[in-house]
Amino acid sequence: MDLISANEKVEDLGLKGYKIIQNKDGFCFGSDAVLLSRFVKLKKGARVLDMCTGTGIIPVLLWGLQEPSQIDAVEIVPAVSDMAKRTMELNNLSDKIIVHNADLNDAPMLFGRHVFDAVTCNPPYMNAGGGIVNPKDALAIARHEIACTLDGVVKSAAAVLKSGGKLFMVHRADRLCDVISAFRKYKIEPKRLSVVYPSEGKAANLVLVEGALDGKPQLKLESAIFMYDRDGNYIQSLK
Amino acid sequence: MDLISANEKVEDLGLKGYKIIQNKDGFCFGSDAVLLSRFVKLKKGARVLDMCTGTGIIPVLLWGLQEPSQIDAVEIVPAVSDMAKRTMELNNLSDKIIVHNADLNDAPMLFGRHVFDAVTCNPPYMNAGGGIVNPKDALAIARHEIACTLDGVVKSAAAVLKSGGKLFMVHRADRLCDVISAFRKYKIEPKRLSVVYPSEGKAANLVLVEGALDGKPQLKLESAIFMYDRDGNYIQSLK
Repeated sequence: MDLISANEKVEDLGLKGYKIIQNKDGFCFGSDAVLLSRFVKLKKGARVLDMCTGTGIIPVLLWGLQEPSQIDAVEIVPAVSDMAKRTMELNNLSDKIIVHNADLNDAPMLFGRHVFDAVTCNPPYMNAGGGIVNPKDALAIARHEIACTLDGVVKSAAAVLKSGGKLFMVHRADRLCDVISAFRKYKIEPKRLSVVYPSEGKAANLVLVEGALDGKPQLKLESAIFMYDRDGNYIQSLK
Repeated sequence: MDLISANEKVEDLGLKGYKIIQNKDGFCFGSDAVLLSRFVKLKKGARVLDMCTGTGIIPVLLWGLQEPSQIDAVEIVPAVSDMAKRTMELNNLSDKIIVHNADLNDAPMLFGRHVFDAVTCNPPYMNAGGGIVNPKDALAIARHEIACTLDGVVKSAAAVLKSGGKLFMVHRADRLCDVISAFRKYKIEPKRLSVVYPSEGKAANLVLVEGALDGKPQLKLESAIFMYDRDGNYIQSLK
């Protein structure tokens, strides 16, 4: 069986030779996944779960940038999960990054409670109510809160994280208050926040948040991240 | 009676000739008050309440920068309240800015419920539990949550604001989650957030938040504010 089908393309990540398979007409990874991978700080040997993994971009980047012991990754759409599995084969990472075709709400049942050192998630950004969407469409599932809600992600993360374990999330800046409220609802205290601005003088578009299960309140609001510098050059996020 | 006593100094604000009386050994207004005054957006003719007014710096700046109809200002420490009253006399603003020596928790009783278009507050930043403080000391009251708590400020603001009315607050960046949680607890939805960084590449030190009583969730995370530009020049906040 070929690893790549006709409607797919392979992108080289420019990181230790790792590649990613993406659907030509589907959801392609963006700067948010790259920014999240750079924001995440893992202890050596950490056991990690990536929720809403999609193409598997975040586990592959984390594997290339840090030293986790194993990454489990969950994706609800069968075809997308299958594509992510083939990406791991392509990179010879199938024994390091285990892709599960599963609902993230079942994570505590699948993996057990309080077993992970870190959970990462680049969730769908749009409220389920926002706009007309086809709930069977993989692209819609990647963008809208159809198969998972912000509340569901954080609830599930709190169940599978060890006490003191970290949840790392990227989200739209206009949902920051929802992110903070959801974290606190499930006793995941936000400890680090990075605000991402398109460029100087522009309103922020993304936020990166790290929370600790059972952590004490004390936020570090880190230095501003600009996607484009004053000369209009795109930041080289992986370098 | 002299308007200024021996242990006081008068500072010219460089704004329409307005001046402020400050205690030589006491709490002097800082860039946080200036930043908050510039962040606030008032409708013409708005009725405004400033809580924890201290020297009265925020009402004077708001009067100079915008067009409110009247500003009430509350200060709990009698000597500080008296000084603020004399500042209004010095500026011929005593009929526009009414300083009350009162506890902000009594604001709904003093002014009535749901009567203000906007509430502003530069509250004490430190948790009451943080460090050894003298609870009778005016300087300690200005800096620590002794006479008022974040929760108390927001609760009182929610009681005196009209529905849709705005609460504007400056606070330490590390308390951002507490600010957002307190706003939402009392149905004041954060609508605008500005993050203030000392300079590029540095962690943020202050946040400016605007919330609307009974507002819908949708945050605008505005462009980054830097206190010092890349040449080390202090921003000219009032210009």
